[in-house]
Amino acid sequence: MSHNTFGHLLRITTWGESHGLALGCVMDGCPPGIALTEADIQPWLDRRRPGQGKFVTQRQEPDAVRILSGVFSDDRTEGQVTTGTPISLIIENVDQRSRDYSEIARAFRPGHADYAYFAKYGVRDYRGGGRQSARETAARVAAGAIARKIIPGVTLRGAVVQIGPHAVDPARIDWTTVDDNPFWCPDPAMVPVWEEHLETIRKAGSSTGAIVAVEALGVPAGWGAPLYGKLDAELAGGLMSINAAKGVEIGAGFASAAFSGEENADEMRAGPEFLANNAGGILGGISTGQPVTVRVAFKPTSSILTPRRTLDEAGNEIELRTKGRHDPCVGLRAVPVVEAMTACILADAFLRHRGQTGGGAFQPGGGGRI
Amino acid sequence: MSHNTFGHLLRITTWGESHGLALGCVMDGCPPGIALTEADIQPWLDRRRPGQGKFVTQRQEPDAVRILSGVFSDDRTEGQVTTGTPISLIIENVDQRSRDYSEIARAFRPGHADYAYFAKYGVRDYRGGGRQSARETAARVAAGAIARKIIPGVTLRGAVVQIGPHAVDPARIDWTTVDDNPFWCPDPAMVPVWEEHLETIRKAGSSTGAIVAVEALGVPAGWGAPLYGKLDAELAGGLMSINAAKGVEIGAGFASAAFSGEENADEMRAGPEFLANNAGGILGGISTGQPVTVRVAFKPTSSILTPRRTLDEAGNEIELRTKGRHDPCVGLRAVPVVEAMTACILADAFLRHRGQTGGGAFQPGGGGRI
Amino acid sequence: MSHNTFGHLLRITTWGESHGLALGCVMDGCPPGIALTEADIQPWLDRRRPGQGKFVTQRQEPDAVRILSGVFSDDRTEGQVTTGTPISLIIENVDQRSRDYSEIARAFRPGHADYAYFAKYGVRDYRGGGRQSARETAARVAAGAIARKIIPGVTLRGAVVQIGPHAVDPARIDWTTVDDNPFWCPDPAMVPVWEEHLETIRKAGSSTGAIVAVEALGVPAGWGAPLYGKLDAELAGGLMSINAAKGVEIGAGFASAAFSGEENADEMRAGPEFLANNAGGILGGISTGQPVTVRVAFKPTSSILTPRRTLDEAGNEIELRTKGRHDPCVGLRAVPVVEAMTACILADAFLRHRGQTGGGAFQPGGGGRI
Amino acid sequence: MSHNTFGHLLRITTWGESHGLALGCVMDGCPPGIALTEADIQPWLDRRRPGQGKFVTQRQEPDAVRILSGVFSDDRTEGQVTTGTPISLIIENVDQRSRDYSEIARAFRPGHADYAYFAKYGVRDYRGGGRQSARETAARVAAGAIARKIIPGVTLRGAVVQIGPHAVDPARIDWTTVDDNPFWCPDPAMVPVWEEHLETIRKAGSSTGAIVAVEALGVPAGWGAPLYGKLDAELAGGLMSINAAKGVEIGAGFASAAFSGEENADEMRAGPEFLANNAGGILGGISTGQPVTVRVAFKPTSSILTPRRTLDEAGNEIELRTKGRHDPCVGLRAVPVVEAMTACILADAFLRHRGQTGGGAFQPGGGGRI
Repeated sequence: MSHNTFGHLLRITTWGESHGLALGCVMDGCPPGIALTEADIQPWLDRRRPGQGKFVTQRQEPDAVRILSGVFSDDRTEGQVTTGTPISLIIENVDQRSRDYSEIARAFRPGHADYAYFAKYGVRDYRGGGRQSARETAARVAAGAIARKIIPGVTLRGAVVQIGPHAVDPARIDWTTVDDNPFWCPDPAMVPVWEEHLETIRKAGSSTGAIVAVEALGVPAGWGAPLYGKLDAELAGGLMSINAAKGVEIGAGFASAAFSGEENADEMRAGPEFLANNAGGILGGISTGQPVTVRVAFKPTSSILTPRRTLDEAGNEIELRTKGRHDPCVGLRAVPVVEAMTACILADAFLRHRGQTGGGAFQPGGGGRI
Repeated sequence: MSHNTFGHLLRITTWGESHGLALGCVMDGCPPGIALTEADIQPWLDRRRPGQGKFVTQRQEPDAVRILSGVFSDDRTEGQVTTGTPISLIIENVDQRSRDYSEIARAFRPGHADYAYFAKYGVRDYRGGGRQSARETAARVAAGAIARKIIPGVTLRGAVVQIGPHAVDPARIDWTTVDDNPFWCPDPAMVPVWEEHLETIRKAGSSTGAIVAVEALGVPAGWGAPLYGKLDAELAGGLMSINAAKGVEIGAGFASAAFSGEENADEMRAGPEFLANNAGGILGGISTGQPVTVRVAFKPTSSILTPRRTLDEAGNEIELRTKGRHDPCVGLRAVPVVEAMTACILADAFLRHRGQTGGGAFQPGGGGRI
Repeated sequence: MSHNTFGHLLRITTWGESHGLALGCVMDGCPPGIALTEADIQPWLDRRRPGQGKFVTQRQEPDAVRILSGVFSDDRTEGQVTTGTPISLIIENVDQRSRDYSEIARAFRPGHADYAYFAKYGVRDYRGGGRQSARETAARVAAGAIARKIIPGVTLRGAVVQIGPHAVDPARIDWTTVDDNPFWCPDPAMVPVWEEHLETIRKAGSSTGAIVAVEALGVPAGWGAPLYGKLDAELAGGLMSINAAKGVEIGAGFASAAFSGEENADEMRAGPEFLANNAGGILGGISTGQPVTVRVAFKPTSSILTPRRTLDEAGNEIELRTKGRHDPCVGLRAVPVVEAMTACILADAFLRHRGQTGGGAFQPGGGGRI
Repeated sequence: MSHNTFGHLLRITTWGESHGLALGCVMDGCPPGIALTEADIQPWLDRRRPGQGKFVTQRQEPDAVRILSGVFSDDRTEGQVTTGTPISLIIENVDQRSRDYSEIARAFRPGHADYAYFAKYGVRDYRGGGRQSARETAARVAAGAIARKIIPGVTLRGAVVQIGPHAVDPARIDWTTVDDNPFWCPDPAMVPVWEEHLETIRKAGSSTGAIVAVEALGVPAGWGAPLYGKLDAELAGGLMSINAAKGVEIGAGFASAAFSGEENADEMRAGPEFLANNAGGILGGISTGQPVTVRVAFKPTSSILTPRRTLDEAGNEIELRTKGRHDPCVGLRAVPVVEAMTACILADAFLRHRGQTGGGAFQPGGGGRI
């Protein structure tokens, strides 16, 4: 990952600001011959789209994606397919509501990247956060939609597992209930608790943090490129690059610090079958064939109504409160983004594994690579 | 990061196995004219060296480093200096004690990378863990010693803050006491607790996890390369690539999920001065001038004496107990490694920042880049 | 360079096909604070634009560029400036004249990339050459326009120095005359010769090769990143990636094979001043402060009216003649492209040099880096 | 390619100076399971080795290579094989004859990289040319020996085709005679001409340029990664990075500038079979299945006995003649180096092609990828 590109053989470069003309990405290195139209991408963008409830920003963006290159169809292709050349995606910004940015244009929201961008670049597009805006994640979600088609055997599922101090009991997670509520909550009993918490937060003009969990099912053994391109290292880097992320853990993660060796070791039986998954599906940076499980911590949005002490660009000490359309819990919009980044990283790992080794995996009991 | 290289302008490629002839690294992109001899590197390796207490592996390795290239001295250089060409470092393996590997040679230790390497490559150097061995981290520590000289204004300090279930109270951390005990413990009151816990673990042939905290002081504002080369993303990826790491968090990390926006926002006063550091010194992927703070969770060593159910390469279900020289708590050796990786990533960020912008940072109150 | 991205700190990713909706590029890593509007880019595109004479394709494309991201203006910026974030450029395809592609859709033009793309990908956008089209070079020219602004001290000048068998005598080159004729010819006496040659070629439905020479004036000493990122290596790779390029040489190039050491050595006098420039301004992969001089050979366009023996996709032996709008001499459109690639590579070298060393160069006579 | 690493999935990092302790490389990304011992590498180094005739430097280096990592053998591997982890190779410098470097230590040989390195870095290892020495190419040759084993179906053959003004007639090339003379000459009739020319050069303390041609036979269609990782672009960049290289051409190269479209187009017949190979086996940056043919121009060695005007580091105008052990024709040692670089680039292209597409190529007549 460098600047605005991530991936190695499958490389995604995103661009665009919150209130510019458009945003988008270029996906380079996609295998040829994969069926792909806008209809394969749009549903994932719709899942991420703001303006769908009272707990997310009221900005109304259709987030309609267009494919500008890298696909082709004629009478022999059975529909539109990828050609192996770069796929350029564009999403126009529509609802850049005219407003007065004069306050944040010259001041640094505490906890926001305003000051860091100013210090580095001297100039910044402050309209809606510019390049720092979570709106950039739309491009990642679009890329993730294509990545999913590169690894059709892999299924991703995600949920919010904590909002503020209210964490879901892992034993109560029921993935089938995630879509039944507006909070991506996998425990129906937690839904009213979160609803009340968020309502309080929203009314107070405050915000709250959250934790998102994602699992990738169907990842075969052997993906990952030790030692620095380890699958878990790439996931950690990629997921930490999402706006507001402050922590990433794989499998048992931080909890494993308290484990004994006996508790931590995921025993194996014929299959191979594992009797536990503390490893989160990755050992030595290589997938084991178990579900790849990750959790990402998101801090609260820094744009809040409560006045906070800060500086303006002139160096004056001021107090600032941030008005406007903001998510009280950015984690509520992060599930599709974490899924998408995971999909992109896994697809890249698949292509690199196939490149170095020819693909497949050795099985205990022999028979070579299958 | 790809395969066995990390970094962009400052690129470190490590190589070597636990029981091969040697291990080492090539550091490429180091600025010219920096004073450098083996004496600048060896002390950091000595800090990491095993065989220094009853709670670490008894393997005796001098870990003597030699610089094979990239430095020069004559009557004008005031001692040996870097030339800007690749610096090749080598550390010979001395104590590859002859032993019987037949058991693990054909079996997969549960929780270890044995199975994943087998599945990916079909062949693996099982002697002492081969390339999976934590011994590889010696090369990172050596590279880190040079990285520190590239950013002399930055000071790194690290500690173990949790062993098993016993966590240090953050309010009790006293960095000056870390070197007074063999556990890198920053709270003298915790030392006897850990000692007893580790003694129990060791006698049981078991192992335990740990959490390591590292702070980088003196990092100026402006380092980091949004959006995917964010400073926190690079730290997360680099630190997760360390053996046994299962989680990385920046600043308040996972705790920030429970925060409100008011709690999380680090308010600013003239200076700029920050009234808190929940951000861990990084906002929007760019350093803010505050200390950069990271925490890394390490799982327990998977090599334990307790028999565990697993498979052998022939696919048979077996029970395996791992004899030999092993660390009961790999976290005890991780502090210098986390410090070194952090140093390398910061030095690379410094060079890239200088490349894109000319270096320095804009200050509130004007005057341009200083 | 990988897939569709070139550059290291300054990274340019191009996308788009000849007859798709649009083409464009993302320039990542541009320093902040550089004045930039479409008016800085459009003139360079206009220089490259086809449809400007009877010896280039009659396709009429306005090649109007739009900047979609990475710039900002407010009342403090003195016009629109770069922000340091990715600059996305788009050029819409307008004149994708409807025509019958059935012949080349299923056949391989000899000397064209048709067969190679088919063999690699199985599917290809044959409309106007798709991704293989020289139309892609518009994106490079647009990127080059920005690169020029990153290194304002560097001036690029280019010319065609050979068309078919008719080569300009180096001793007769007069750079001031290049714009006085439609052939980028630096020798007025050669203009009628080329005109007659091209008229013959055009009438015959044939095509001809050419050689383009470009010089970069004002490149200071010290740019380049030995050993594999050598400045001449990057130029060779970047320029060979232009459509139809078959050879690249630096300075005296292939002629130096016939030289003696005495003839080849560019002697130096105080300044430093060089008494010759066989090196083409690069020694050991590092710029010397002399003009950087390169020459690129372009083969004839493979789309000709003369029937040629070839295969169709079904494997049948056929004869093929290529109708449609084609350049009889692709070299006539290559000058702005070679200039642009050179500018991009030099700008990237400048940023990397500044990153590793802080910039500047040591001068004989001392005083350190200036 | 960046700094001292080339390649993408197969990455080779070289290090070392002419008169340091050793030189070597790390090859990363090699597929696992390939039989490999020092005996596979040493013969290629022996071919490159100086001290083998009166027309090459008299420095006596055994160039004995040792493999330090990345290989393994036990009772199941049928000999030593690669493991997929980094292969570290080391070649110790033995004959660093003590001599007086005071003259070139403070002066810049005209035509040599002395001045450029000084300007960039301020400090340089002038002993034997330091990092600029052609001795570095030993590491490339060693890497190339492994690359050949990754693509066993590809055969490389190289020759010197021009020394000074004496060029071999392409029609007279007989590859079977290359090893029958000390000049890698493929035309027996040219051998005495070159011998006399070189004897004259040597006696005069002068030097001469040369052109090397290399062909890769057995490259299947489909390798290469358009648009900037084109196979010809990668070859041009990689070969231009060899010491003293000043030009690279593919296929007909610069001669194609004089061609008409009819002459240039390589017609195709069933097979596919090509009736000519002006393309040099590459179209659109992708291999066609024909032999890949490249030619590289090498300038004369700049170290000559004839006094030349130059500067010293203090800025004084001086005259310099270079004594010591030097090759009168560096091209005579370049054939194994050009072959090795070509092998490395092809092996990397193979792995990337397999990664993106699964490998193989589509054939006219159908049946899909084979």
